[in-house]
Amino acid sequence: MSSVVPSISPRTGDVVEVVASETPTASVDRICRAAAAAAEALDALGRDGRAALLEALAQALEDARARVVAVADRETGLGEARLNGELTRTCYQLRLFASVLTDGGYLEATIDHAGDTPMGPRPDLRRMLVPLGPVAVFGASNFPLAFSVPGGDTASALAAGCPVVLKAHPSHPATSKLCFEILTEAARKAGAPEGTFGIVYGQQAGADLVAHPEIRAVGFTGSTGAARALLAVIEQRPEPIPFYGELSSLNPIVVTPAAAAERAPRIGTDLAASFTMGAGQFCTKPGLAFVPAGPDGDSLVQAVQDAIDGLEPMVMLNGGIAAAFTRGTAVLSTVPGLTPAVPAPANDFAAVGPDAAAAGAPAGSRNAVADGGGFRGTPVLLTTTAAELPPEATEECFGPVTVVARYQDESELFAALATLPNSLTATVHRGADETALPAELTRRLRSRAGRIVYDGYPTGVAVSWAQHHGGPWPATNTQHTSVGTTAIRRFLRPVVWQNAPADLLPPELRDEYDSIPRRVDGRLRPIP
Amino acid sequence: MSSVVPSISPRTGDVVEVVASETPTASVDRICRAAAAAAEALDALGRDGRAALLEALAQALEDARARVVAVADRETGLGEARLNGELTRTCYQLRLFASVLTDGGYLEATIDHAGDTPMGPRPDLRRMLVPLGPVAVFGASNFPLAFSVPGGDTASALAAGCPVVLKAHPSHPATSKLCFEILTEAARKAGAPEGTFGIVYGQQAGADLVAHPEIRAVGFTGSTGAARALLAVIEQRPEPIPFYGELSSLNPIVVTPAAAAERAPRIGTDLAASFTMGAGQFCTKPGLAFVPAGPDGDSLVQAVQDAIDGLEPMVMLNGGIAAAFTRGTAVLSTVPGLTPAVPAPANDFAAVGPDAAAAGAPAGSRNAVADGGGFRGTPVLLTTTAAELPPEATEECFGPVTVVARYQDESELFAALATLPNSLTATVHRGADETALPAELTRRLRSRAGRIVYDGYPTGVAVSWAQHHGGPWPATNTQHTSVGTTAIRRFLRPVVWQNAPADLLPPELRDEYDSIPRRVDGRLRPIP
Repeated sequence: MSSVVPSISPRTGDVVEVVASETPTASVDRICRAAAAAAEALDALGRDGRAALLEALAQALEDARARVVAVADRETGLGEARLNGELTRTCYQLRLFASVLTDGGYLEATIDHAGDTPMGPRPDLRRMLVPLGPVAVFGASNFPLAFSVPGGDTASALAAGCPVVLKAHPSHPATSKLCFEILTEAARKAGAPEGTFGIVYGQQAGADLVAHPEIRAVGFTGSTGAARALLAVIEQRPEPIPFYGELSSLNPIVVTPAAAAERAPRIGTDLAASFTMGAGQFCTKPGLAFVPAGPDGDSLVQAVQDAIDGLEPMVMLNGGIAAAFTRGTAVLSTVPGLTPAVPAPANDFAAVGPDAAAAGAPAGSRNAVADGGGFRGTPVLLTTTAAELPPEATEECFGPVTVVARYQDESELFAALATLPNSLTATVHRGADETALPAELTRRLRSRAGRIVYDGYPTGVAVSWAQHHGGPWPATNTQHTSVGTTAIRRFLRPVVWQNAPADLLPPELRDEYDSIPRRVDGRLRPIP
Repeated sequence: MSSVVPSISPRTGDVVEVVASETPTASVDRICRAAAAAAEALDALGRDGRAALLEALAQALEDARARVVAVADRETGLGEARLNGELTRTCYQLRLFASVLTDGGYLEATIDHAGDTPMGPRPDLRRMLVPLGPVAVFGASNFPLAFSVPGGDTASALAAGCPVVLKAHPSHPATSKLCFEILTEAARKAGAPEGTFGIVYGQQAGADLVAHPEIRAVGFTGSTGAARALLAVIEQRPEPIPFYGELSSLNPIVVTPAAAAERAPRIGTDLAASFTMGAGQFCTKPGLAFVPAGPDGDSLVQAVQDAIDGLEPMVMLNGGIAAAFTRGTAVLSTVPGLTPAVPAPANDFAAVGPDAAAAGAPAGSRNAVADGGGFRGTPVLLTTTAAELPPEATEECFGPVTVVARYQDESELFAALATLPNSLTATVHRGADETALPAELTRRLRSRAGRIVYDGYPTGVAVSWAQHHGGPWPATNTQHTSVGTTAIRRFLRPVVWQNAPADLLPPELRDEYDSIPRRVDGRLRPIP
């Protein structure tokens, strides 16, 4: 029975159905070989063919919206409103990558005609990007529709021309299976080769997947621990492959004295909404906010507390996450210098027993099973000072908890900022006409984050051409991004054709081709 | 005495001078901290300031041409003609990166104005690339001026805005020191901050360098073994950093029957020139050529042999390389099925004794010392068949040796190609009007190499916008390139500003800025 993959309701902790068996090594091998066999035909669909494929996948998910949202809601407890929004997001993202293909700039087509240079004669050189080959995509627990079987990794890998083998997240296997079936069927109808999609279940299957010689890259969103385990498998490969991991992020927020003076209550209310959104289970959740000492800051903290006081315990994604949240907030509450903004009832920190993860969970799911009440966490606000910021307050704690650190002056603030780990995001709330302190904060935060947010909140990662979802370690382990159009570049590599006859060149590199942006003889030429 | 770094003449094997001491760990630390301290000021020079810096560096190297070439020739034996060409190349490359900075497209500036989307309202998002921070550059033995202290890694890292700490190659420490002094002095005069350049000597210093917390990326050209040793050090870091390694490459050549019928003698003569150029010490040296069986192929092989028959033993870069070449060709000559095209005199394989590397070499240099005749290797041509291609013939052997594999038909050729390791390059010689076989070869070789050369030779890597110097493992360990303008991207990372007030944005991301290519609201805008 250890090989069973159950779908568990986080609202009740009950197993609702058995979705699949864990995928044995031999099946992982077969699936990866099928992906490799599909690679050339998927590439040969061309940009137009793959754009049509992505549009068809989006439409198929749209057409199955009610069914997908219902299964995902049953399995994740995220609620239909959020999941409908997430489905919209994932369809939008597929269509955005279709437009990336139509645009063609992602190919980085570059032509240097033969000619004389100070180095002597130069041959004709033509460069563009080509697909890497089959990509393994590890779904994340917290976005069952937008960072999972469908999502940024899948959309960008397919757009690049790479078959995708998915590792289903054990927190939502039924959603994964349903989405996989919808995508596979739509891909078949759209003329994509068999093997364009594959799916595997189970932790060992995930390790087998990244070890497989046909896999050429890995897209991963999850914990630093799981990433390290997969990286250890990759290090055993004879051929290294890129592992694009989106891992851990504190997402600090700085509220300047001017901002607090102008709008403390509003910032407090919005901060509470941001750190409790999705039960705080966002990689961009603000985990630490620097707020000035004094009455303006006091009223900001009070507004946060007021906003969360009325909140019910929130359903969390699975027993493991709920237990880790309970443990994490319990530990935080015992750290000297870290105190609840208002004293909390004793059971606030014990929505599920801290040992639930170790007891009674099906081995296949690794979820803790709660006794009737499901997996829940109560929002927590803790306060401390920037001057004596405890190290525990600078570690990501997944779930609806944030720490407010009060600072007396800029030097105290800057000293505390220098101790923070790097993040996906950093946020500055400034006064309407304030420039000096925000400029100094921008200078200090630019090296610590991949996105700097002004007068807003880091949760909510718009999908667009300019977006970037990454940051220095431990936010991500590469410079690359899993959101935004440049995500496609992770799955491409350059090839140069030297003195090639025109009929052996890809169409995009022939002289007369002019429907994509290209750099010709050193000058970027737009689409006419 | 183990800490002495000697400059050795490969023509005689004699120590000419002691250049430096190995850099102790404390000094590596000081140098890396100085680099980190320089990072912000180097970035603040801006694109124009750094373009001027690169121009000044090129001019300073030009001004010192005679001195640099003399020292490099004494230390590498590569000859003044080649070294003058290499200096020209490295100056051209510095100036090309100046033009990359002026162009500004490398920033990938992207602006999405706030607006409504199917996902709801989108904030204003503006993305561009920013420097990673201090970069460690490991010089290669075989290009003392173009892949060493000056070279593609240094030029692209500086252009990106990253200070550079150089690891001097033990094969040319005097050249490294001289170039470092020239660059440092020129950088100072051009207004670059102290710490823009640093240099370290010795193997332990190299390990200390990649372990140092201030180092943010590594550029490396060298052996797979040395790369693995450095990667093992990087794996011990708390924060991973990218390691851009250019490692090992066989560079297969395929001559089609039509090409052999048209111009066998010419191809043979040119192939001989390519694999013996620079004593075969190029990462792009063609190490294996597939030539059709039959009379045309015979005359091609004879032309290769005729071209090398008159050649004297060639001076090699150092004792270790000469000894490895001697060992390698000796091993190849004993492999069943691999035979010299014409029987070679017994001492052809023993320009220096195979154990020279282990005996009598100064520990600091790890060079073998030959007895009076310096470090030399005699060009070797071996032949075999594609049908029974020995695995030894598919491994890179640095130095003037190549293997010609004769094939009976396409199926034999394709089967042999499928067994090759990946390479930086692959080359096709085709008949003037031939398309079917060259197209099939292109299809098969595209996944195995980073550059496909037609009717030419892979040696000679032009520096240009479209160039790429990389390939699937083991050619390189990432998708990235160390030659060509996109080399700069290895040392940059994206940052997004969300809803930033204009005065907090970098100039290149403000609405009114229009002197670089940018993508605005999804559409690439050229320079007006």
